[in-house]
Amino acid sequence: MDVTTLGEARFASPLRRSVSDRARLPVEIVRDPDAPRDGGIEFELAGPRARIFFDPAAARAGIVTCGGLCPGLNNVVRSIFLELHHSYGVREVLGFRDGYRGLDPARAREPVALAPDFVDDIHKEGGTVLGTSRGPVDTNIAVDELIRRKINMLFVVGGDGTQRGGNDLFQEARRRGYPLAVVGVPKTIDNDVAFVSRTFGFLTAVEEAAKVLHCAHTEAHSTPNGIALVKLMGRHAGFIAAGATIASQDVNFCLVPEIPFKLEGEGGFLAALKRRILTRGHALVVVAEGAGQDLFQADVGGRDASGNVKLGDIGLFLRERIASCFKADGIDAPIRYFDPSYIIRSVPADSEDAVLCDLYARNAVHAAMAGKTGLVIGCLHDHFVHVPIEMLARQKKCLDPDGPAWHAVLATTGQPPRFC
Amino acid sequence: MDVTTLGEARFASPLRRSVSDRARLPVEIVRDPDAPRDGGIEFELAGPRARIFFDPAAARAGIVTCGGLCPGLNNVVRSIFLELHHSYGVREVLGFRDGYRGLDPARAREPVALAPDFVDDIHKEGGTVLGTSRGPVDTNIAVDELIRRKINMLFVVGGDGTQRGGNDLFQEARRRGYPLAVVGVPKTIDNDVAFVSRTFGFLTAVEEAAKVLHCAHTEAHSTPNGIALVKLMGRHAGFIAAGATIASQDVNFCLVPEIPFKLEGEGGFLAALKRRILTRGHALVVVAEGAGQDLFQADVGGRDASGNVKLGDIGLFLRERIASCFKADGIDAPIRYFDPSYIIRSVPADSEDAVLCDLYARNAVHAAMAGKTGLVIGCLHDHFVHVPIEMLARQKKCLDPDGPAWHAVLATTGQPPRFC
Amino acid sequence: MDVTTLGEARFASPLRRSVSDRARLPVEIVRDPDAPRDGGIEFELAGPRARIFFDPAAARAGIVTCGGLCPGLNNVVRSIFLELHHSYGVREVLGFRDGYRGLDPARAREPVALAPDFVDDIHKEGGTVLGTSRGPVDTNIAVDELIRRKINMLFVVGGDGTQRGGNDLFQEARRRGYPLAVVGVPKTIDNDVAFVSRTFGFLTAVEEAAKVLHCAHTEAHSTPNGIALVKLMGRHAGFIAAGATIASQDVNFCLVPEIPFKLEGEGGFLAALKRRILTRGHALVVVAEGAGQDLFQADVGGRDASGNVKLGDIGLFLRERIASCFKADGIDAPIRYFDPSYIIRSVPADSEDAVLCDLYARNAVHAAMAGKTGLVIGCLHDHFVHVPIEMLARQKKCLDPDGPAWHAVLATTGQPPRFC
Amino acid sequence: MDVTTLGEARFASPLRRSVSDRARLPVEIVRDPDAPRDGGIEFELAGPRARIFFDPAAARAGIVTCGGLCPGLNNVVRSIFLELHHSYGVREVLGFRDGYRGLDPARAREPVALAPDFVDDIHKEGGTVLGTSRGPVDTNIAVDELIRRKINMLFVVGGDGTQRGGNDLFQEARRRGYPLAVVGVPKTIDNDVAFVSRTFGFLTAVEEAAKVLHCAHTEAHSTPNGIALVKLMGRHAGFIAAGATIASQDVNFCLVPEIPFKLEGEGGFLAALKRRILTRGHALVVVAEGAGQDLFQADVGGRDASGNVKLGDIGLFLRERIASCFKADGIDAPIRYFDPSYIIRSVPADSEDAVLCDLYARNAVHAAMAGKTGLVIGCLHDHFVHVPIEMLARQKKCLDPDGPAWHAVLATTGQPPRFC
Repeated sequence: MDVTTLGEARFASPLRRSVSDRARLPVEIVRDPDAPRDGGIEFELAGPRARIFFDPAAARAGIVTCGGLCPGLNNVVRSIFLELHHSYGVREVLGFRDGYRGLDPARAREPVALAPDFVDDIHKEGGTVLGTSRGPVDTNIAVDELIRRKINMLFVVGGDGTQRGGNDLFQEARRRGYPLAVVGVPKTIDNDVAFVSRTFGFLTAVEEAAKVLHCAHTEAHSTPNGIALVKLMGRHAGFIAAGATIASQDVNFCLVPEIPFKLEGEGGFLAALKRRILTRGHALVVVAEGAGQDLFQADVGGRDASGNVKLGDIGLFLRERIASCFKADGIDAPIRYFDPSYIIRSVPADSEDAVLCDLYARNAVHAAMAGKTGLVIGCLHDHFVHVPIEMLARQKKCLDPDGPAWHAVLATTGQPPRFC
Repeated sequence: MDVTTLGEARFASPLRRSVSDRARLPVEIVRDPDAPRDGGIEFELAGPRARIFFDPAAARAGIVTCGGLCPGLNNVVRSIFLELHHSYGVREVLGFRDGYRGLDPARAREPVALAPDFVDDIHKEGGTVLGTSRGPVDTNIAVDELIRRKINMLFVVGGDGTQRGGNDLFQEARRRGYPLAVVGVPKTIDNDVAFVSRTFGFLTAVEEAAKVLHCAHTEAHSTPNGIALVKLMGRHAGFIAAGATIASQDVNFCLVPEIPFKLEGEGGFLAALKRRILTRGHALVVVAEGAGQDLFQADVGGRDASGNVKLGDIGLFLRERIASCFKADGIDAPIRYFDPSYIIRSVPADSEDAVLCDLYARNAVHAAMAGKTGLVIGCLHDHFVHVPIEMLARQKKCLDPDGPAWHAVLATTGQPPRFC
Repeated sequence: MDVTTLGEARFASPLRRSVSDRARLPVEIVRDPDAPRDGGIEFELAGPRARIFFDPAAARAGIVTCGGLCPGLNNVVRSIFLELHHSYGVREVLGFRDGYRGLDPARAREPVALAPDFVDDIHKEGGTVLGTSRGPVDTNIAVDELIRRKINMLFVVGGDGTQRGGNDLFQEARRRGYPLAVVGVPKTIDNDVAFVSRTFGFLTAVEEAAKVLHCAHTEAHSTPNGIALVKLMGRHAGFIAAGATIASQDVNFCLVPEIPFKLEGEGGFLAALKRRILTRGHALVVVAEGAGQDLFQADVGGRDASGNVKLGDIGLFLRERIASCFKADGIDAPIRYFDPSYIIRSVPADSEDAVLCDLYARNAVHAAMAGKTGLVIGCLHDHFVHVPIEMLARQKKCLDPDGPAWHAVLATTGQPPRFC
Repeated sequence: MDVTTLGEARFASPLRRSVSDRARLPVEIVRDPDAPRDGGIEFELAGPRARIFFDPAAARAGIVTCGGLCPGLNNVVRSIFLELHHSYGVREVLGFRDGYRGLDPARAREPVALAPDFVDDIHKEGGTVLGTSRGPVDTNIAVDELIRRKINMLFVVGGDGTQRGGNDLFQEARRRGYPLAVVGVPKTIDNDVAFVSRTFGFLTAVEEAAKVLHCAHTEAHSTPNGIALVKLMGRHAGFIAAGATIASQDVNFCLVPEIPFKLEGEGGFLAALKRRILTRGHALVVVAEGAGQDLFQADVGGRDASGNVKLGDIGLFLRERIASCFKADGIDAPIRYFDPSYIIRSVPADSEDAVLCDLYARNAVHAAMAGKTGLVIGCLHDHFVHVPIEMLARQKKCLDPDGPAWHAVLATTGQPPRFC
């Protein structure tokens, strides 16, 4: 799956090293005669190219951060700027403010002209110095603005919808004959991007989530029949819930979107929780926000400003159902409820995410300078690759119920493979 | 204000140092000719006595932890045990389980016989290894149980209600002619105990609260018109809210129980918040849980299992009022709400609280061994003292609206002295 | 002990509250008929005065930070500036660079004109944004420079020597008839200032030191006959060593300057350590840098740039002596040595120190505005006071070998009261 | 490269899922027509097998941890035990004490019989509950002991030398006809194991190292001409130095074993450092312990108890050379030296390492239960594999001077590619 290129790379790269434009990384790398798979998808390897499309002396770049907070946003902004500025010698880099809103002059604050002093310490803080917001921008207005500001490269840091929006910008620019490289850095704290082993911010989120689980365990453990219920991020995939559960080793039940569960009945979750309380006197329950959505009426629905389906609040729902279940049985079991989402999203990146952000950012710059467009940087099998944006839309990454991570969750919790 | 003593101290203390039984610490220590105050209350100095009431070889002690979690509970349990065991040579120390429930054989788990190995690492974890619960115990049942188990000294770690309950136990034992020393270590994360400069767990709570404020500031700051609203502990006094506000220096509004505030009108809180958002684009609001209770109908009421008046939830109330206020004015201002109570209560004590717990605990042991009863250990003007339990009931400690701490809050927030 | 005042306070304070100039706080507050002490020293209460000496509209202030790093320096700088700027309306505040060197134009970088934006986030980082250095400045040159820059108030953040230097500046200015208020904030991570319960940075240092003790305990505990030796700060007083020892509860031996110890012989430290290793298989030893100086030859001596006596390095000395002792006895006992001084000094202030810094700083401003000079702010018995600089020189604060803190050290370590 | 198998797998696995014994993962996965590489090495995929060699009901396992501390040792011990105990139903698991010394009855403490209660919280602490030591054990004595204790599976957690020792044990057992599965979990905080993307403890080490860099930066930055020099782990490879440098973004010079450097001359390190000090006034230097070994005389040499070549102390050497260089030029440049090795090695694993440890451990158990031997578990391209121990000896993993990580180091430091 090769990505679109704006045209012939006519300039020599100022960098010392380069990666061949013909190198490819296959998605499937295991060779198993008992389960042969088709050779399948391959991606271009990311990295600096020997020849580049844009003349660094003339090029102008823009950066925009969109959607909810995620640890590492400032690291990405900073390293994109520094790679453009120091490694390629690009003179002007604009930071558009407040997400895509920043591309609409009617709604925007003036963008900031990035400079070494401005970015010097920004990676030590969470959040994003550029500001962020949810929601799209009118494609025509945004392309007008990008052309008006002579932007040749736009770096888009954001989730699925944001990246699709970025693709629309590139397509519209192409329609107008304006060579605009749009390169995305995928941002999802949930780590659910297909073809991407690890998105930035995810490890930090697991670390912070595990701290909350420690607190929750303490609360449950210190009270007779104490139940601690922790809702963690994970709209479509339970990676944070599973990761924090394995790291913590204190969790008794872990509920994720990938694995539906029944509440009632002998094999249901509530009966299992009750057995645990009666025999062990405390329990720690983790639920990913996207778990158990089939338990809600069809009409919860609607979409938020980012276009995401609004989920039913499984945390509050479970708290209520657990409380009534124990009340009905006359068991005094105090429930402590934890919803740490904003406390987790807003911390600075830890060191491993800081390193990952740096590499994502620099590879995004290499791609844009080479005139690649309509792609996001992926990180797969210890390598960075170019993933065409349209590939992202095809599938989400999910926990494999038969894989080692979920096995580790079942092993540490002791919970049954299914509540049914 | 001297405390009750069970009788003549007939045994020599095994400790090398001692404090005179006649040393007193005045509550008022400032001498101000412009504002003369009556000499006022004095308390006995805490510390080991040269002669003690109980024969260490024959004495048996019990410890009980009650109410909500607070950083340092395990440190207190551990140091009480170690001071009894190593310094005095008391052979048997029982840890009653799950609060006062542990003194009622019909509802109790068997107490744990404390030993050096059991307590070795408990201070490194939050919560309480003994377990805790809310609510009283029948005084007669509990005294029966204490006598049955030959307990001579009961160490009660808990809040106001708990300490009054402890006083009842001592009074009932005295009625029966059974010499029972009941010594309390005051436990309130809110730091609102009269005659006590600092209760254990308070500094740790401020530290953890300040971290949450940092996250909240990041969320507010990263979004156009972002409002972060943080509810912190503080039923009757805003010490945690004020302390975290001064430490953070990022807070724009701090609302505490001691200082009533108006919501509506030109001088009200909502108008001030709106001005801030319109001029600065983000705001961080901290509210103590006991603030603004006059804004609720009289009938919120009721009491919880600990006998505390149930407060209206000022956090959710403010979130709702802020949201409708901005909505009415057509201002898009996303609100992030933080309620970190359980995350704060359950962490281990930081070093300063660890030191404080150790000193509270050892002074409690000295008091009990000397046959003092019906008291809690206080910490005042850099000294530890004996505070009769009945003194505690007389008043709560509150923020002084004219004192330096509140001045520092006003200075850092820039908020007006009153919203009215 | 009243402090010097520059003259009549002719201006009304812009602040809402004030403290009487006649209020005094006694140093001795315990009343003990068995150990009567003379009424003793009293200090002026710190705080805003109703009338002030300097006209805020005309006043100019300077701040200088001197000596080694200490958590909270930036907090102090920030709050001094903000109190001057916002509360009093002082328009110009200069930050002199790199300690006293900044007062000598021949050696100085240009001072920074402090402003709200400059100080906004500085308290979130350790170190000092003003820079610091050791060593004095020529008094005449410095006073010339202060007069040339029309500085009326100089805030000096530093240790003993620095404060004495500040006193010289005030005296020289007085000699010249120039009204200069010199107000100090005492800075010593060791917490050894007489008449001051707690200096800023001390609690943070104890917290960080306790973390190192945790690591050291892990190293010792994981290896057969493992010995971990940790050198902590404390030139004249063992407060950090004692505090971290009590907080950690993992230490087996704590050696401090206040309590001499013998190395050799049956009652010496080495024999006790050997007994511990042979019976328990691991040991954690903490030594304050000023401990055991009598073990060195008289000629170690000399003084550093700050004028402090150069200490013999007791940490390396003990490591060597322990190693040879065990080698001589044919016992294989690996020693891990920790010297975390710079890692501790350079962290940001924790919340409690942040609060303390804020209050020190604001009280320093109140004193200077009122025309007080030649003093440092003290913090005693839960109050802030004015301590004349000459009082500081009279004595150092030390651990009381018969007090509760040292009793707690002995209790947690189980070490004998004396190694002799 | 397939591993040795003890014999036919005759028992059905109790686990629900399995991995084919024929699945292979290639080491080279990039396909580059411009740089074709031979198909090269492939490894068996790790994971549970459908049929296993050992009867769980009869099997007995042992675990041993060797060499220096590394975050995650307890996590590995715990998850090996739990996978054996809960997933396979193995009844007896011995923890040998103090490294290989524990296999020699003449020198050993009695091994601990692992049980769920014993391991419950051990992962929350650093170090190893089993104890560790350096140095080998006599192969014959150890095999005698393993046979005497009827151990069928030995899990060896340690570095190169340790794993080679484990291989010797398996070979000797085979010689005697005793079926002993020896499975290693590679332990090196340096992350320099060939065919292994990431060893456990490495990420935690980078995180802790980055914190020290933050402190060092603060020290350097707060003093005129301040130089901070930090020695980090990395005997043969600079992964920790490079990772912490990229994460920190505050480092100005990073010196690693893979890239020799000259000290003297115009192009040398000292001249570059001097230019930095003269123009910027502070510098942060990171050096891996194995860097610059060619700067020492050939005779530093010798080997430690683990058989590692003794390195010259490049940290102290550089400190000395920097000091004399600046002294010779009459520049007053205070140097702060940091050697945080033991503070880093002894912390608990962070969440990502905790997850990694869990997966390493469970895969080690799967391998051993299937009768695989003479291997270590590897983690490569997002998969776990079986690496024959002899493969480990062939090569070390090093930083690629032309790869993205080193490019990121050069970009953040701004240092020249070579000092020559």
